[in-house]
Amino acid sequence: MTSLDSPAEATVLVSCPDRPGIVARLTGCLHEVEGNILDASQHTDQQSGTFLQRIHVSWPTAPPEPESVRETLQELADEFDMDWRIRWGQSPRRVAIFVSRMDHCLHDLLLLRRDGALNCRIPLIISNHEDLSEVADRFDIPFHHVDVSDSGDEQAESRQLALLEAHDIDLVVLARYMRVLSPGFIEQYRHRIINIHHSFLPAFAGGRPYHQAHEKGVKLIGATAHYATAELDAGPIIEQGVIRVSHRDSVEDMVRKGRDIERTVLATAVRWHLEDRIVVHGNRAVVFD
Amino acid sequence: MTSLDSPAEATVLVSCPDRPGIVARLTGCLHEVEGNILDASQHTDQQSGTFLQRIHVSWPTAPPEPESVRETLQELADEFDMDWRIRWGQSPRRVAIFVSRMDHCLHDLLLLRRDGALNCRIPLIISNHEDLSEVADRFDIPFHHVDVSDSGDEQAESRQLALLEAHDIDLVVLARYMRVLSPGFIEQYRHRIINIHHSFLPAFAGGRPYHQAHEKGVKLIGATAHYATAELDAGPIIEQGVIRVSHRDSVEDMVRKGRDIERTVLATAVRWHLEDRIVVHGNRAVVFD
Amino acid sequence: MTSLDSPAEATVLVSCPDRPGIVARLTGCLHEVEGNILDASQHTDQQSGTFLQRIHVSWPTAPPEPESVRETLQELADEFDMDWRIRWGQSPRRVAIFVSRMDHCLHDLLLLRRDGALNCRIPLIISNHEDLSEVADRFDIPFHHVDVSDSGDEQAESRQLALLEAHDIDLVVLARYMRVLSPGFIEQYRHRIINIHHSFLPAFAGGRPYHQAHEKGVKLIGATAHYATAELDAGPIIEQGVIRVSHRDSVEDMVRKGRDIERTVLATAVRWHLEDRIVVHGNRAVVFD
Amino acid sequence: MTSLDSPAEATVLVSCPDRPGIVARLTGCLHEVEGNILDASQHTDQQSGTFLQRIHVSWPTAPPEPESVRETLQELADEFDMDWRIRWGQSPRRVAIFVSRMDHCLHDLLLLRRDGALNCRIPLIISNHEDLSEVADRFDIPFHHVDVSDSGDEQAESRQLALLEAHDIDLVVLARYMRVLSPGFIEQYRHRIINIHHSFLPAFAGGRPYHQAHEKGVKLIGATAHYATAELDAGPIIEQGVIRVSHRDSVEDMVRKGRDIERTVLATAVRWHLEDRIVVHGNRAVVFD
Repeated sequence: MTSLDSPAEATVLVSCPDRPGIVARLTGCLHEVEGNILDASQHTDQQSGTFLQRIHVSWPTAPPEPESVRETLQELADEFDMDWRIRWGQSPRRVAIFVSRMDHCLHDLLLLRRDGALNCRIPLIISNHEDLSEVADRFDIPFHHVDVSDSGDEQAESRQLALLEAHDIDLVVLARYMRVLSPGFIEQYRHRIINIHHSFLPAFAGGRPYHQAHEKGVKLIGATAHYATAELDAGPIIEQGVIRVSHRDSVEDMVRKGRDIERTVLATAVRWHLEDRIVVHGNRAVVFD
Repeated sequence: MTSLDSPAEATVLVSCPDRPGIVARLTGCLHEVEGNILDASQHTDQQSGTFLQRIHVSWPTAPPEPESVRETLQELADEFDMDWRIRWGQSPRRVAIFVSRMDHCLHDLLLLRRDGALNCRIPLIISNHEDLSEVADRFDIPFHHVDVSDSGDEQAESRQLALLEAHDIDLVVLARYMRVLSPGFIEQYRHRIINIHHSFLPAFAGGRPYHQAHEKGVKLIGATAHYATAELDAGPIIEQGVIRVSHRDSVEDMVRKGRDIERTVLATAVRWHLEDRIVVHGNRAVVFD
Repeated sequence: MTSLDSPAEATVLVSCPDRPGIVARLTGCLHEVEGNILDASQHTDQQSGTFLQRIHVSWPTAPPEPESVRETLQELADEFDMDWRIRWGQSPRRVAIFVSRMDHCLHDLLLLRRDGALNCRIPLIISNHEDLSEVADRFDIPFHHVDVSDSGDEQAESRQLALLEAHDIDLVVLARYMRVLSPGFIEQYRHRIINIHHSFLPAFAGGRPYHQAHEKGVKLIGATAHYATAELDAGPIIEQGVIRVSHRDSVEDMVRKGRDIERTVLATAVRWHLEDRIVVHGNRAVVFD
Repeated sequence: MTSLDSPAEATVLVSCPDRPGIVARLTGCLHEVEGNILDASQHTDQQSGTFLQRIHVSWPTAPPEPESVRETLQELADEFDMDWRIRWGQSPRRVAIFVSRMDHCLHDLLLLRRDGALNCRIPLIISNHEDLSEVADRFDIPFHHVDVSDSGDEQAESRQLALLEAHDIDLVVLARYMRVLSPGFIEQYRHRIINIHHSFLPAFAGGRPYHQAHEKGVKLIGATAHYATAELDAGPIIEQGVIRVSHRDSVEDMVRKGRDIERTVLATAVRWHLEDRIVVHGNRAVVFD
């Protein structure tokens, strides 16, 4: 996950058992390799005694030797039993978007990226339907129709995985993709698949959540962006939003109102991922916003 | 449910199979008995083809004969297969509040009533603990400690029901009362028991919802006011609210943040009930707000 | 404002001095011409003693004679000193969208219309810049570049007005159009020009509201959709929304966050207008939602 | 502002011109005096190039010499041109509450403190009316009626200031106190007077904001907690909240709805102050939440 495009800046994410002195040692260590800390956020999970930190570093005078920075951090990591990763520079990640027939989330992601609000490249859009090829064309993004009904899930996933590999994809965004991915697929992109579920999870997991919500007579409907895990709609929650409904709203009204929440919640989650603001700890997504 | 205190005003709530002409007939019928419609709201449930309406009527010149109004409406009701009720005047309902140890909801209800924002009388507070007797004292409301652990649920409920009957109670408010009432009790006060559940139902029904919410890592927590039914935490939802949380919030923080939502949501639900704004249709509470 | 496309349905909006019997007479009058009331909402403004109502009527068996309906309503209107309008059927209104360089609101309106969530035709887009002609092309909508800097405001407005007239436009939507229209222009489309202002009015009227908000250190930013009036950013407010910000948000972050609110608030306001849900009373927009 | 009650913990707040190495030096410096950083948040104001940080430190083994910690920090402060303050332990601050006739905010503060959600002592309540003396009595807090109308503002303020001094007050909370304090008074408690204004500032500053809001027909009303400054309702904003209203809401309804927002917003602002989470920078309150 290291790129060398602009080594004058880096984001470091660490997690380790909490211990006195860890902040001072980590910042001292970065100072030693001549990095300047622009921004540091931390969180200590009291229950598990886990220390989590995100540090944004710059090298104002001369770019550092990435190798020497890595060595210095690895030494510290060995000492503190630390999981860590570093991401150099602002090099955009490579994102694949999966869609079915609805395009409100897709449109939003494409417009935000065009406007510079999402720092990423989108080398391909994959769909189990042909409907949205036109949208892809408008934004000059290759569109791959991977039929699922004909070929079966397994064969379809093989083609999808081959495409992801061929395009060196870092992140998969399920922008109202209406199929369930296999545990094997998900494992290969662990914490790198973001799904938008059109309900306020854990309420209304599974299919037709707006119908379920209407049936229950809830007064607020919601949307949840989460990392996909093997268990359906149960992965670490990144972001959630809600909007008010009443008895006057039919299921169709809920679908319409829900769109605004879905796309906003998904776009926010994707942005946070691209800015390396998320650390998954257990089944919870810690967001340094 | 008829009171004769101030017959110059009434609220009429009706529900019946939808049919052309129903609005005109109903309003015409009220005009006939010389009522002036101050406010009329309606809703047609398309799925079940049910027409629901709330009408606020006044008699600007002379108060009507309640009996003659009832007869006129009953004739219409027979013709249209209509469920209906009329509530005369602004006579305050009689409310019993059940509490356990937490007093944030209780305090809010008592203050709102004192300030005239809740039109009701509160002849008694019932609790399974002694803790809040002092709060009741401050507001000059009789406090009844009905011990549950000693006497068993059945005996306790007998005492509670006797108290409700003795005080001619119209509405029971469970203001963070931490016991489950029996189906028999609930049936006797059908759609006249309002409970506040400290989660965004149907997520986190049952015990310790903030612990469940924390465990799941949700980004919003909520509260739900609903009519109690035999099935726990599954009755018609009257009102819901949410508040944002993050990984920085411990269970204790959630409990604290949740308080504001709980009391606001409960007070709103109670107010709507007291203003005859709610019609339960199937398992959904239609609120004419 | 009458169209005869589908006379089996109509929306009637009335306002008049409040008086006993008005609801019964109005509904009775519609029953007389064999209309079935699907939905009726009303509001009485206590301060001014004004009665406002919106009625949605259908003719389930045979379409009525529009002329005879009009006559019947006009008789009532004369008696009750009533302002009223009727809109037949679901015939879509004709909407012109004015834009400058930002396209998030424009995109949203075009997508919502394409998906059937906005019932209107959009015969033209007018802009003082060429930038968004491409977006118009994608949705096959004629794009008119009316240069303002060269020709001066007066000449530009003449061209704009000629275009609106030539296309028989009912509603003008200023979707982040960054020019002020003259009082004369506004008067010609009184309560038929909807503007989105990127602040929570009346805070931060005028230019660069996000800069003003950042300067003030507010904790929430907002957007306001309102009917344009001669006084800048002071017309009747149709809808408002807010989103949380903090000291971490730069002006650029506020601009980004504000986009979601702006487009949602504008789209909601336009939808309400198209569904004849708004009555302007004094300087306030009453929304029957 | 130093107390020595529990020297095993401290909160350090610093602000200084931004400069490479500042984080590492500060954390190193605390490590040197054997402090363990529990939590560190920072913010760099890009416009002014100002670095702001809040650090929560503990001494897990032995309490430090406060004097030696101060010396070490002062040395650093001299080098980096740093404003700083340290607050030892969890010793509760001493808070005076000013009220007039409305008690919803007062009640909330008293209940939150009783429940341990606000870490402070409240040695006195000051009011220009006698109405709320009973509330004070219930919570066993001395109540001082300082008449303003009779004695004039100047004399009243002298008495108030004498009371604050006699009780060694750290923070003044204006909980719907309906009088304007003089610039001289405010200066003496600079950034230590928190006011709740019942509107979404800067909209509707000054008197009768709900009337102003109703007049304007806004769709959301709000409340703003801010530090009092010489300019009325223009001090650094700490927290804001809003709630939805419609044409159906009278001014009285707005007042009622506003109460919930006012007390929640004020309580949050007071809690943040008591937890040393706020640094005022220019006219903006940076909240490390």
